[in-house]
Amino acid sequence: MPAPASPAPFTSGASAAPSAVRVALLGCGTVGTQVARVLVEHGEEIGARVGAPVELVGVGVRDAAADRDPAVPRDLLTGDADALVARADVVVELIGGTTRARELVHAAIRNGASVVTANKALLAAHGPELYEAADAAGVDILYEAAVAGAVPVVRGVRESLAGDRVQRVLGIVNGTTNYILDQMTTGGLDFADALARAQELGYAEADPTADVEGYDAAAKAAILASLAFHTRVSMDDVAREGITSITARDIDTARRMGGVIKLLAIVERVATADGEAVALRVHPAVLPAAHPLAGVGGAFNAVVVEAEAAGRLMFYGAGAGGRPTASAVLGDVVAAARHRVQGGRAPAESAYAELPLASPDHVRSRMQMTLEAEDRPGVLARIASLVADNGVSIESVQQSPSTSGTAVLVVVTHDADEASLARTVAALREAHELTEILAVHRVERP
Amino acid sequence: MPAPASPAPFTSGASAAPSAVRVALLGCGTVGTQVARVLVEHGEEIGARVGAPVELVGVGVRDAAADRDPAVPRDLLTGDADALVARADVVVELIGGTTRARELVHAAIRNGASVVTANKALLAAHGPELYEAADAAGVDILYEAAVAGAVPVVRGVRESLAGDRVQRVLGIVNGTTNYILDQMTTGGLDFADALARAQELGYAEADPTADVEGYDAAAKAAILASLAFHTRVSMDDVAREGITSITARDIDTARRMGGVIKLLAIVERVATADGEAVALRVHPAVLPAAHPLAGVGGAFNAVVVEAEAAGRLMFYGAGAGGRPTASAVLGDVVAAARHRVQGGRAPAESAYAELPLASPDHVRSRMQMTLEAEDRPGVLARIASLVADNGVSIESVQQSPSTSGTAVLVVVTHDADEASLARTVAALREAHELTEILAVHRVERP
Repeated sequence: MPAPASPAPFTSGASAAPSAVRVALLGCGTVGTQVARVLVEHGEEIGARVGAPVELVGVGVRDAAADRDPAVPRDLLTGDADALVARADVVVELIGGTTRARELVHAAIRNGASVVTANKALLAAHGPELYEAADAAGVDILYEAAVAGAVPVVRGVRESLAGDRVQRVLGIVNGTTNYILDQMTTGGLDFADALARAQELGYAEADPTADVEGYDAAAKAAILASLAFHTRVSMDDVAREGITSITARDIDTARRMGGVIKLLAIVERVATADGEAVALRVHPAVLPAAHPLAGVGGAFNAVVVEAEAAGRLMFYGAGAGGRPTASAVLGDVVAAARHRVQGGRAPAESAYAELPLASPDHVRSRMQMTLEAEDRPGVLARIASLVADNGVSIESVQQSPSTSGTAVLVVVTHDADEASLARTVAALREAHELTEILAVHRVERP
Repeated sequence: MPAPASPAPFTSGASAAPSAVRVALLGCGTVGTQVARVLVEHGEEIGARVGAPVELVGVGVRDAAADRDPAVPRDLLTGDADALVARADVVVELIGGTTRARELVHAAIRNGASVVTANKALLAAHGPELYEAADAAGVDILYEAAVAGAVPVVRGVRESLAGDRVQRVLGIVNGTTNYILDQMTTGGLDFADALARAQELGYAEADPTADVEGYDAAAKAAILASLAFHTRVSMDDVAREGITSITARDIDTARRMGGVIKLLAIVERVATADGEAVALRVHPAVLPAAHPLAGVGGAFNAVVVEAEAAGRLMFYGAGAGGRPTASAVLGDVVAAARHRVQGGRAPAESAYAELPLASPDHVRSRMQMTLEAEDRPGVLARIASLVADNGVSIESVQQSPSTSGTAVLVVVTHDADEASLARTVAALREAHELTEILAVHRVERP
């Protein structure tokens, strides 16, 4: 039967209109409140972008009677998260943690709902099982907000660079440590004082371990590496060094060389004898002032992605906060809702490349060593040969007299493997010409 | 009939595998060669990301016998673009221009193929008719590479910020003018010499009008505004001022104030008596050193997007060049191919907001005026009152004696509408206390 040339004039409009996409929100903290606010206030605009009405059907909270921001309609609050999940097309998980969140996400997927989450801990701990469940059910699981807040780097790596080969991702992805290092740099504070200030202002938690020891950044590194290299990795695969041992003197030494110290998450594709591997690490490093990440201050996040064809891209923006994080969540809600209405799915997690983890031998870094030495002829030559003997090549040395009859040498190496660098530092510790090793840090190129 | 618990063991694998997605490439210049190279060399990896084999079925060129990069298989070259388009699922249009490109894109859409293009001139001239045709046919038309090369700002605005409200987009989107201004800033060249150098190096064309007069940036501004504000606009709606009148003295004046001059494309949502409108403009402006776009040098592009919830995001990367542009094209090819295999469509163009164009009264800028005046008491007060009389409020004044018995004043205003600013400048031109108006430029906040 041929299709009619034009719609029949007396058809009820309601029957032709696509039915509403039902969104359930789990959790109503800083981010959840903002998500609810936008869905209520700008629901019509969101619906226009989806192609169908988008309806917030409920907000699951622990205490439905507690005082809340008036932006969240009271009649949507419910303590029964299971019942809420059962009547949603898209479930937004913002309760955090890995137990109840995991149960509810699985329940949502079983019900055929798509999931949007900002919960990097959940993904780091249980990502693969959730991705598989979502694949089997043919639903989306989206998590732009889990890495770097509003900064759209997850979509950038997963979709924009889908036709390219990512070589390296390098990012400032933890706002707490960036704030602390910023305070140390601009305010001359030592680590303990800067941490205390961050805690006072609510930028750091009472137990700051997850941030300052680099666990949070490691979880994000694992997520970025999985996307960039199509290889399943977990945060336990990330070599991790936090910022607790960074001193005011380290900061000062870096500054005198025109650099700043930042905590970086670095994931990269490295060449091995058998082909390729992935190297994952989180550690502080000196960035020269000209590096695009050097100027990223305070609670901002930024991620540099280096791809074979695209070259170096940078994504920059607010790394945390209720509204920026809500923006990332809502971008994913629109994508998931569009797929409900118009078909299709977001690119799923893929692990087809199955690259092995690189051994430390394959990870190459440059090192900046600040050394105090006796101020007499021949010391520089002695140190240079000692470095060379350990298989490390020197890129530059700057020597300046210190006040106390000693000289301060800043030695920057070329790229070398971790083992050679460690041997070099150990040998320098034994060198009697050196009165002190003032600082040793990895250093990035501009 | 219940589904079998496991696949039947003797089914032929071939019948279950999804059929290949056929990609046709139109044009084989710098970008096309790189697109072809990646599809040939990394076809398997691209296929893994799509979920089906991706096959380059032909490369349409004017002269199939001409010498070409060996990365492009000779047997794929064809002079018959129409026949090629007829047997493709995804057509990549890289021939440029607006006549033949338009015919071929329409032909592709009629055949039910999706289209990927880097052709901003085509979109600026015929975008709406192409978007409508693509909508009617249910296919994708994707164009990440048309704005800012590899920088994924089209996807960022269209998808990542789909749950937010973009207030303003501000970008360096033309590499040629950025290179020229860079040369003027770092090399002290005047405009003509910097343009000549850019032409020698192939960064500027023999007829540089499209770049230096801001037409290219205006086309990109129109594309970004359409996406950001869900409103149909064309490049003729963009107020446009190029860089041909920028002098070495302007650059020098900006530098002495700690700033740089950049050509900016600015599109923004402004409040009017009746609600909202969009203001679109391309013009040079002074950026203070702390502005995230101030450090964007050479042929790089960067775009700042300010959204209600996300705050300020920045996207940065290579704005041109064969490989970076190919990366953006291939990201779109993967998206279009995925939709062929798995269903769904990329978010289509939408114009539901239908915001009117703002009148100049609604566009507010800050102005930095560098004035040479008689060096005697009362001159500053006279100038200040003259500015105030024209309805413009002063944010700061710096006064420094010049060599010749005159004083140089740098006046920065608060935000004011274009008409008041123009009146103010006209009044200053008449003021007998001023010996010269050295420079007048819009200036952005850090």
